[in-house]
Amino acid sequence: MLVLSSPSGAGKSTIARNLLETDPAFRLSVSVTTRKRRSSEIDGQHYHFRSVPDFEVMRDRDELLEWAEVHGNFYGTPRAPAEKAIGDGQDMLFDIDWQGAQQMKEKVGVDMVSIFILPPSIDELRERLKRRAEDSDEVIETRLRNARAEIAHWREYDYIVVNDDLNDAFHEVQAIVTAERLRRDRRPGLFDFVSEMLNESAVV
Amino acid sequence: MLVLSSPSGAGKSTIARNLLETDPAFRLSVSVTTRKRRSSEIDGQHYHFRSVPDFEVMRDRDELLEWAEVHGNFYGTPRAPAEKAIGDGQDMLFDIDWQGAQQMKEKVGVDMVSIFILPPSIDELRERLKRRAEDSDEVIETRLRNARAEIAHWREYDYIVVNDDLNDAFHEVQAIVTAERLRRDRRPGLFDFVSEMLNESAVV
Repeated sequence: MLVLSSPSGAGKSTIARNLLETDPAFRLSVSVTTRKRRSSEIDGQHYHFRSVPDFEVMRDRDELLEWAEVHGNFYGTPRAPAEKAIGDGQDMLFDIDWQGAQQMKEKVGVDMVSIFILPPSIDELRERLKRRAEDSDEVIETRLRNARAEIAHWREYDYIVVNDDLNDAFHEVQAIVTAERLRRDRRPGLFDFVSEMLNESAVV
Repeated sequence: MLVLSSPSGAGKSTIARNLLETDPAFRLSVSVTTRKRRSSEIDGQHYHFRSVPDFEVMRDRDELLEWAEVHGNFYGTPRAPAEKAIGDGQDMLFDIDWQGAQQMKEKVGVDMVSIFILPPSIDELRERLKRRAEDSDEVIETRLRNARAEIAHWREYDYIVVNDDLNDAFHEVQAIVTAERLRRDRRPGLFDFVSEMLNESAVV
């Protein structure tokens, strides 16, 4: 399970999309939200857009791995797809904020790797949000305040990637994924591989 | 500090050389040995070749980070160059066996990452040693017996790379190095970077 967090505008979504396109072992966890859909968003792909009562039902039935209220809207991670992916031997990618990451670590307690994407500077983050041209100046300033709060939690992540250049940042995230899969304690299949190798040489 | 281990013939030396050529942050730790120099080897580059009495003096003066006797010869890792590299902010690459890796972990206790390179099979290892054409059949069989003993310690390493294809294996080792450098706890400089970023946004 890979958790990717960053303030909005730091490039997290692009990096997540690239990772899903180039690495078939990953499935994306699609969050549930009560916030309004933006014109560029597709229900079930960017988010599952739900009403507040529907969200509350999911939450109360313990169908969410984590949930939080941000900017007056609810966000949550559905439990069923994550459990299915793990059962299928797939890796699951979570595009969530620090509150979600923290809850996941506490409640799920499974094998989880977390990466925080930092922007090169707050000024650059403001420029990127302006270029995206989806939000009013007021909303952008709210996002920047929120970005500061998010960045303040950078020390809770395993890895830090500074997104100065998107290609470099993506390459770094790929390297983290490759390396984490090579960790000895994550490769139970190697036990048989090595046993067979040692037996093979014993009979020669 | 990066420890790279493998049975001889599994490709460790080639991978180490590629890493040193492509990554200027690495310095190689050159081991001291009392074994006979092979015709292809250069003193001070592949090993520091020393007499048994000279080796014993180094060992008794605590000038070695670790040492061991293998195949009737002494091998050791000199302390001074490693301490200088760490002091200079360089990364140090150690091309040593499991006994050395274990001693380093116990005695040095510093920030150390270990990678074990596995051959795809013992038969393939035998073929590689034969192709190298440096050793007699008898020596090759001794090396293979030793390889089995070395492989039996694979579980003591942080990462396992199977060298089926040299390019793939090198790419995997590079990914491990890249990822380990991105670990939050290995990036003390980020603290100032983030503090500055948060201050910058506060004054806007």
